[in-house]
Amino acid sequence: MSVLSGIYTPNIVPFHADHSINEGELRRMTSWLIDRGIYGLYPNGSTGEFIRLSFEERLRVVEIMADENKGRLPILAGAAEPNIEQVLKACHHYADLGCRAVSITGPYYFKVSQESIELYFREIAAKSPIDILLYNIPQFSNEISLPVVKRLALDCPNIIGIKDSSRDLPRFCTMLAQIKPQRPDFVTFIGTEEILYPALMMGADGGTIASSGVMPEVIVQLYRDFLAGRYDACRKVQLMIQELIGAMFAAGNFPEGFRAAISLRGFDPGPPRFPLSAGELAHLEKSKATIACLLADCGYAEAAKECQLRQGKSGAATPFDVDAIVNAVVQRLKQ
Amino acid sequence: MSVLSGIYTPNIVPFHADHSINEGELRRMTSWLIDRGIYGLYPNGSTGEFIRLSFEERLRVVEIMADENKGRLPILAGAAEPNIEQVLKACHHYADLGCRAVSITGPYYFKVSQESIELYFREIAAKSPIDILLYNIPQFSNEISLPVVKRLALDCPNIIGIKDSSRDLPRFCTMLAQIKPQRPDFVTFIGTEEILYPALMMGADGGTIASSGVMPEVIVQLYRDFLAGRYDACRKVQLMIQELIGAMFAAGNFPEGFRAAISLRGFDPGPPRFPLSAGELAHLEKSKATIACLLADCGYAEAAKECQLRQGKSGAATPFDVDAIVNAVVQRLKQ
Amino acid sequence: MSVLSGIYTPNIVPFHADHSINEGELRRMTSWLIDRGIYGLYPNGSTGEFIRLSFEERLRVVEIMADENKGRLPILAGAAEPNIEQVLKACHHYADLGCRAVSITGPYYFKVSQESIELYFREIAAKSPIDILLYNIPQFSNEISLPVVKRLALDCPNIIGIKDSSRDLPRFCTMLAQIKPQRPDFVTFIGTEEILYPALMMGADGGTIASSGVMPEVIVQLYRDFLAGRYDACRKVQLMIQELIGAMFAAGNFPEGFRAAISLRGFDPGPPRFPLSAGELAHLEKSKATIACLLADCGYAEAAKECQLRQGKSGAATPFDVDAIVNAVVQRLKQ
Amino acid sequence: MSVLSGIYTPNIVPFHADHSINEGELRRMTSWLIDRGIYGLYPNGSTGEFIRLSFEERLRVVEIMADENKGRLPILAGAAEPNIEQVLKACHHYADLGCRAVSITGPYYFKVSQESIELYFREIAAKSPIDILLYNIPQFSNEISLPVVKRLALDCPNIIGIKDSSRDLPRFCTMLAQIKPQRPDFVTFIGTEEILYPALMMGADGGTIASSGVMPEVIVQLYRDFLAGRYDACRKVQLMIQELIGAMFAAGNFPEGFRAAISLRGFDPGPPRFPLSAGELAHLEKSKATIACLLADCGYAEAAKECQLRQGKSGAATPFDVDAIVNAVVQRLKQ
Repeated sequence: MSVLSGIYTPNIVPFHADHSINEGELRRMTSWLIDRGIYGLYPNGSTGEFIRLSFEERLRVVEIMADENKGRLPILAGAAEPNIEQVLKACHHYADLGCRAVSITGPYYFKVSQESIELYFREIAAKSPIDILLYNIPQFSNEISLPVVKRLALDCPNIIGIKDSSRDLPRFCTMLAQIKPQRPDFVTFIGTEEILYPALMMGADGGTIASSGVMPEVIVQLYRDFLAGRYDACRKVQLMIQELIGAMFAAGNFPEGFRAAISLRGFDPGPPRFPLSAGELAHLEKSKATIACLLADCGYAEAAKECQLRQGKSGAATPFDVDAIVNAVVQRLKQ
Repeated sequence: MSVLSGIYTPNIVPFHADHSINEGELRRMTSWLIDRGIYGLYPNGSTGEFIRLSFEERLRVVEIMADENKGRLPILAGAAEPNIEQVLKACHHYADLGCRAVSITGPYYFKVSQESIELYFREIAAKSPIDILLYNIPQFSNEISLPVVKRLALDCPNIIGIKDSSRDLPRFCTMLAQIKPQRPDFVTFIGTEEILYPALMMGADGGTIASSGVMPEVIVQLYRDFLAGRYDACRKVQLMIQELIGAMFAAGNFPEGFRAAISLRGFDPGPPRFPLSAGELAHLEKSKATIACLLADCGYAEAAKECQLRQGKSGAATPFDVDAIVNAVVQRLKQ
Repeated sequence: MSVLSGIYTPNIVPFHADHSINEGELRRMTSWLIDRGIYGLYPNGSTGEFIRLSFEERLRVVEIMADENKGRLPILAGAAEPNIEQVLKACHHYADLGCRAVSITGPYYFKVSQESIELYFREIAAKSPIDILLYNIPQFSNEISLPVVKRLALDCPNIIGIKDSSRDLPRFCTMLAQIKPQRPDFVTFIGTEEILYPALMMGADGGTIASSGVMPEVIVQLYRDFLAGRYDACRKVQLMIQELIGAMFAAGNFPEGFRAAISLRGFDPGPPRFPLSAGELAHLEKSKATIACLLADCGYAEAAKECQLRQGKSGAATPFDVDAIVNAVVQRLKQ
Repeated sequence: MSVLSGIYTPNIVPFHADHSINEGELRRMTSWLIDRGIYGLYPNGSTGEFIRLSFEERLRVVEIMADENKGRLPILAGAAEPNIEQVLKACHHYADLGCRAVSITGPYYFKVSQESIELYFREIAAKSPIDILLYNIPQFSNEISLPVVKRLALDCPNIIGIKDSSRDLPRFCTMLAQIKPQRPDFVTFIGTEEILYPALMMGADGGTIASSGVMPEVIVQLYRDFLAGRYDACRKVQLMIQELIGAMFAAGNFPEGFRAAISLRGFDPGPPRFPLSAGELAHLEKSKATIACLLADCGYAEAAKECQLRQGKSGAATPFDVDAIVNAVVQRLKQ
């Protein structure tokens, strides 16, 4: 069995008006996510805009969340720093904070060879005090090619898995076929929410799903339905959320749509770290109305009110009773 | 329900030594595929190298296969010609031959606007005597964007579906969510064999699967297992064939690996249409040995012999009894 | 010295309302171009939409232009056909028509290996009755890589040069450095009009320049200024025409902007081969007004009238006396 | 006239064995470059691997070089930091150190809209205490589109120019045509050494040329030949250095080839910041021999010895007398 599984949430980072991290809101969001039944925290993912934070801010985000978590859930902390020394500094810090593992992208900016990427991860693995998850996201950083992933998986026990956000399910399936028979505990997380269910059906151990920061109840339920073999329900939900996911991506520069959406759940994300033009802010505001209605369709009462207020729509009937889900989680946590 | 479903086979075209079409072998292959239980014929797909044939040769391929078919299976004929007049000429010819539908890619070579692509398909649809399947393959020709697919699906009754070979399952899932509720009979075929099973689980109506020209028994069985709800079997087979699929793609310029593989099933594909260097021919020959062993793993006795001959391996135990599958088909056909 | 040099014009193809080739207009345009001093004709280039014509139409375009030319200028005929047999058929036909050479792109649609592309051209060169110019246009067809170009240049005497439309001047300069010292007669034509002058300064033998079908006088003059060492004039003209070139590319699907522009010189291009939406046709019409004014800036009296009519502008002062250029050409031709 | 002109050198950063910055070697290199006649220093460019340094290290590199420079040459300091606050912190620091301007890339990692990139630069320009040069390098970071460059150039007086490393001369020429007539002092530096001379002929004000860190004498001479109208010499040199440039790029991950080359000029670059595999290190060592021989061809006596030692070649005759160039610079500096 794999070391990690289930739904990990790459959370957004809320900012104050002066662009500093809003610690209070970040704490509140962390506990809220835990209460809603997600399986792990994932600070400093792409959704968390690690690339737009300073080194000190990245450390701080994990400190805050680890402190708020109080050991309730495993933490996977993003540690994609600009050189090996900085990566290791981050690894030590996150290990000291009690994180379960770190996730590291291929290097960004320069294009580099696969051979050197392999060596890069081997050097980090040799010195890291904490388990490592590869993070493949070729849209933004150098791909970690499949042969490299395979060799690292078979040679490095503390490289415990991969988070694949490449949107490339053919590659993901081939990876499962190539690695799992020889290393069954290698964690395979899908990072593309539009294909969470089909990836699970193929053997993914779970997913790092930005939408689970917005509608944890729905994503967690999908995963539980999968575990219980309720495949029709999974498929229905997966198809239901495509439009919402698309709306969040189309709302503006990533992850502004996700940040806007979480404001509909009662959190204040604050201003964007990378500026948006007046036209783009207007589009974001308009998208928020759409997102509210789509969230209402997923069973969120507060979003339904927002949708009605903004668009005069009352929200569709829905397969979800969000309150019931939350109650079930609460029961589980009490035990 | 969708108009078409199941496994359609985009067959290779066998050539004589002088590069002309080997009609005898093409006929034999056509009947062989039908006998193995595929659901439809698909001449002039990318696997059929339509782009490397002359207009007359493309017509001829469909003539031969339609004649050999004798109405046994529906035929989907590729009609991606260089301009609307030629497309319509091909459509008329294929309609006269009794084909069920044609498949048409976005235009290749020039990059053109989505607006003009939409108009292109509308004009063809307005004049075509035969149903049309869109063919999305952005690797090689202009993408047919999702908004265009949706508008065409909702406006044009004789555009009956799409064959998507983009390898992009997120897009495929979004398409299902956007179109199926409003037009449930719109055919959604996946054209990427590495994700046939997950696409089916999401709601694909079937697939145009090049591998089904090499191992029709296995692909057909996977589809039947899906229909019967035997999901574990589907997953097992899907994972099992990844390496074989990869080996066929890596053997040389597409579709030489598929052509080499079919020679292991007793057919003579003849020389490549687009030349291969001596080094590439040697690599192809070596790949054939690998492919033989992987086919042996899938239960093919004749490939097992070839594998042993070439590599001294005896072939793994396998979940398939190919002969039993063929017998089952024969029984079904007899009824 | 190189075998070919100067400005070759890849002409557009005028169509009748029914989309058939407008032979009369094509003849008139051919002689008009010759009279304006271009150095060579170039039917079946990308500007000539060879990919949207049938094989028979491609042959016909060259027949018409060769017949009209009556040996006045060398003809470089596009022969990028879908397979070697068809390429050679075209080569024989164009040789019989008295063409000087053919131009052949890398294969389109499928991605193929550089090794096989090299063999492809070697096989064609071995059997072709006419000299060959490689045509590198990686935007639309497989790149012909620099090592392949070099080996072909050094090994194949009847591969006499290359036409490079990759927009990649760094590659072009490296090619000059690698090939010219060993084969000084290898023709190096630039196919990107925005960099005609800098390419000439580096050692290009000339260019295949779509704009020379619209404003032959200006492009020919730039080339003559280069030959005469009037570099300031060249630079001034090159900078002057950037906006016009940009406007023609931005007017719609290629080459509709160039087709619209030539209508301002008194020719009827007819309807587009690939359809344009109503919105796109309106944009094209609007672009025509812009193009007219930019042509007026280049000294074209008839465009100046059109500009004034459409936009109420009177046209800027200009460094060109187009009539004087034409007179000079006429004088030269009389000798 | 433009505010800046001539050859700016994006220098490499030498490291100690423990990967810390080798200050002594960096100082020595700085003065050596100044002595060889370059026109400006350019720390924290891509060649300086700014992305692989920590924030503190980037500040430190500029501190060291500014201190060593002692006001002799203008300094253009790279300030591409992960968010506006950090960019401005760097700007203030570099202004305090007496730098002439900063250079800032488009944001990297995430894809963002052109609208937001425009706003990003407007916000920085509004608050920066130092002049700004845009840095366009779409290979590694978001493109700064031409319309955005134009609007920034016309609206923001302290955005004084652009450094374009896109390798896209058509774009560069169009930019010159669009901006220079309205803002003649806007600095246009080419960042692609293979096309330095043609860019100068079109109107570039100079270049940021990594090779000038390896062979400052040659690049400076090319620029002076251009100023003096010795165009044949420019062309000859430009063609001569293509192979050397290519060899430095092909030697390994950028900028290892440039770092290896400078070791041939008597500097110790130290180990790579991003690791190279054993095979890659061997390839780098082999490339060094090639580079030595190509440098010998450019007239470098010390490289000639290295070439002979490593490959037994004696170096070609050369158009350069490097000593004479250095002497000329020394004379100029004395005045």
